[in-house]
Amino acid sequence: MMGAAREVTAECLCIGDELLIGQTINTNAAWMGQELGLSGIRTILTRVVGDDKEVILEALRTARADIVLITGGIGPTKDDITKRTLCAFFGTRLVRDAAAEARVVSLFTRMGRRADEVKEADLAQAFLPEGCLALPNELGTASGMWFERDGRVYVSMPGVPYEMQGIMRGSVLPKLREMFKPPTIVHKTINTAGMGETQLAEHLEAWENGLAREGIRLAYLPSPALVKLRLSTYAGADRAEAVERVERQVKFLHGLIPELIYGEGEQVLEEVIGTRLRELGQTLALAESCTGGYLSHLITSVPGSSAYYIGGVVSYANAVKMEELGIPSDMLELNGAVSGPVAERMAEGVRKALRSDWAVATTGVAGPDGGTAEKPVGTVWIAVAGPNGVTSSKGVFLGTRDLVIRRSAIAAMNMLRKQLPKP
Amino acid sequence: MMGAAREVTAECLCIGDELLIGQTINTNAAWMGQELGLSGIRTILTRVVGDDKEVILEALRTARADIVLITGGIGPTKDDITKRTLCAFFGTRLVRDAAAEARVVSLFTRMGRRADEVKEADLAQAFLPEGCLALPNELGTASGMWFERDGRVYVSMPGVPYEMQGIMRGSVLPKLREMFKPPTIVHKTINTAGMGETQLAEHLEAWENGLAREGIRLAYLPSPALVKLRLSTYAGADRAEAVERVERQVKFLHGLIPELIYGEGEQVLEEVIGTRLRELGQTLALAESCTGGYLSHLITSVPGSSAYYIGGVVSYANAVKMEELGIPSDMLELNGAVSGPVAERMAEGVRKALRSDWAVATTGVAGPDGGTAEKPVGTVWIAVAGPNGVTSSKGVFLGTRDLVIRRSAIAAMNMLRKQLPKP
Repeated sequence: MMGAAREVTAECLCIGDELLIGQTINTNAAWMGQELGLSGIRTILTRVVGDDKEVILEALRTARADIVLITGGIGPTKDDITKRTLCAFFGTRLVRDAAAEARVVSLFTRMGRRADEVKEADLAQAFLPEGCLALPNELGTASGMWFERDGRVYVSMPGVPYEMQGIMRGSVLPKLREMFKPPTIVHKTINTAGMGETQLAEHLEAWENGLAREGIRLAYLPSPALVKLRLSTYAGADRAEAVERVERQVKFLHGLIPELIYGEGEQVLEEVIGTRLRELGQTLALAESCTGGYLSHLITSVPGSSAYYIGGVVSYANAVKMEELGIPSDMLELNGAVSGPVAERMAEGVRKALRSDWAVATTGVAGPDGGTAEKPVGTVWIAVAGPNGVTSSKGVFLGTRDLVIRRSAIAAMNMLRKQLPKP
Repeated sequence: MMGAAREVTAECLCIGDELLIGQTINTNAAWMGQELGLSGIRTILTRVVGDDKEVILEALRTARADIVLITGGIGPTKDDITKRTLCAFFGTRLVRDAAAEARVVSLFTRMGRRADEVKEADLAQAFLPEGCLALPNELGTASGMWFERDGRVYVSMPGVPYEMQGIMRGSVLPKLREMFKPPTIVHKTINTAGMGETQLAEHLEAWENGLAREGIRLAYLPSPALVKLRLSTYAGADRAEAVERVERQVKFLHGLIPELIYGEGEQVLEEVIGTRLRELGQTLALAESCTGGYLSHLITSVPGSSAYYIGGVVSYANAVKMEELGIPSDMLELNGAVSGPVAERMAEGVRKALRSDWAVATTGVAGPDGGTAEKPVGTVWIAVAGPNGVTSSKGVFLGTRDLVIRRSAIAAMNMLRKQLPKP
């Protein structure tokens, strides 16, 4: 099953003094390695070099993989070192690319500038090495560049992560798959919330041990408060068989941890909740204390969320809790702001004030200060109010202030998800 | 002034399949690059390779820097690939190192295990290439290894970040400074908001050209809506002179772009605003539409922000704008929700409702849908209300929904910063 087709290899050449001096962490290499792997292409080397023509040339000359992905060193402040070096390497020169120029002008027009205001430095982005194929960049002025020589592909992209990712997804990965036909890898990622990686691994141990016999590998991909499980297998000529083999195990996994699974692949909790609310034709409001707006930010990060998200209140001062959310002052005194009764009243209060079907509230100690013996840093109460009443639940989340906020917001969304009626 | 002392160079060789497939982001290279730079050593290359003897050997053979820092590929689960490869490269063999063994045993004792329980796999960590200098690892069982050949230093360390960092700080950096006596580098980073990289570079061109005469290099470090400017210079024997030389240019820069500079080094806008509000003894409230809670999240990401941040309203539905913030419905109809008058009323409304000294409001089209010819995606109105009244300003921000939200929030904080009374 494995290694039937010829292996296709790639190397990454990341250009930028800022990477070498550690001002920027090289997330591009990790992202490219992951995406290449999912396309069945193996990354064998990553090199990071400075903005230095000779060093870049040397790296290009000694490349051995089928595919050389180059990031960075494009743009006016970089003095376009990559473009000039590519010209030297391929023995060509910079020429004006009309399509690239049109994209630069249109980008600036969208920003409200007149075409004749586009500056020379920006128009320089439309000059590309002769003979390269320009790859459109929807999110910036620097185009991607595709070269071929002696059966090897060289692709140059800007170093800005989202611009690089857009060009990779839009042009580079589809073209590479078409050209090299790497072995097909079938994979599926199942997303879970509500159990830590170690405990989950213990819980799934017996099942995991049986996967090897099915030719399936399992990877745990943890992030704060979430664990993704990726199942992957090589597909031979019969892709449908491999898909079916993976799906059988996914179905089995759903039986093992039905409550923990919230989605698949790139799906995030805020999207899953949004889709469900949209299907139900119901609305959501939020009352945040310790999450300080982060929960609202996650909900509104989903395009179209205004269809079901009415709005929220960030009640940082107790006065806001009392006035905007109708929390009685004796309740705050008796229980403290970080308590189940207050969380429940916050949820009920915002649900009533904004007339939503559902409401979620958070109140806790995000830290680093403010913890007590009884309510240490990381103590968070979450409440969900809905058509059938209100419930609350306490969590104690570990880590820095930022992590407590992130874990609380995810736990709050997961609590709402479990209460929303199933399809 | 520059290059007076001989430049000392380093390269990093990071070993691990998990880095190449993108399961782990290479934070080690960034950390080492930063620490080396602060010690006056220039990193000229980083290579990431898999757990493969031939590939590692090739990288060792082609190393050109004075210092080769190797991380990863040590330990039982890695089959000690790095150690075996180093033996092959230096033509030596593994021998038991008594001091290293004592450290392994003592580490296990501290973890509560008896000395006779230490496993064979763990004791294998005490076998090191003959002739290397073992560098103590206080936080793990794998020792660091120091080799010298032909005036070049090779150091191998475990890939676990905190173990590597402990060995670097405890042994490697002091030994390198003693051996190579690199020049001291003085640097300072100035943080700006409110002007894009290209425009800023044009604005500062004449000044930048003059920096070379002062022996100072300038680097532009852009991120969405922000540009950091790093000035750096080599210091000779007289460190104070170099500090003074950089400070003189920093002062000049303040004169050139007084409005754009909000801080230095690691300072962020939300911190700068928070410090200023705290000094003034004044408070802040927020009314967010298009930023959807992200602005509130940034403000509350600062520890202790409850001292000046009262709270906010996320008014996603127009009903919330009307009811919670007192926006007249005819104003919404006449101007549309994305307009200067509505932004100003939102800011005034939340300032009044939460009785704060200052208030910031955002309303815009974050996209990807909802844009019109008149108000395209990215159009955002920001208003700041304070003791002296309310003002508003329009921006058109480029990029994905996430970027429009981020850029809007930063522009909003920058607008508030400029209106807060100076110290």
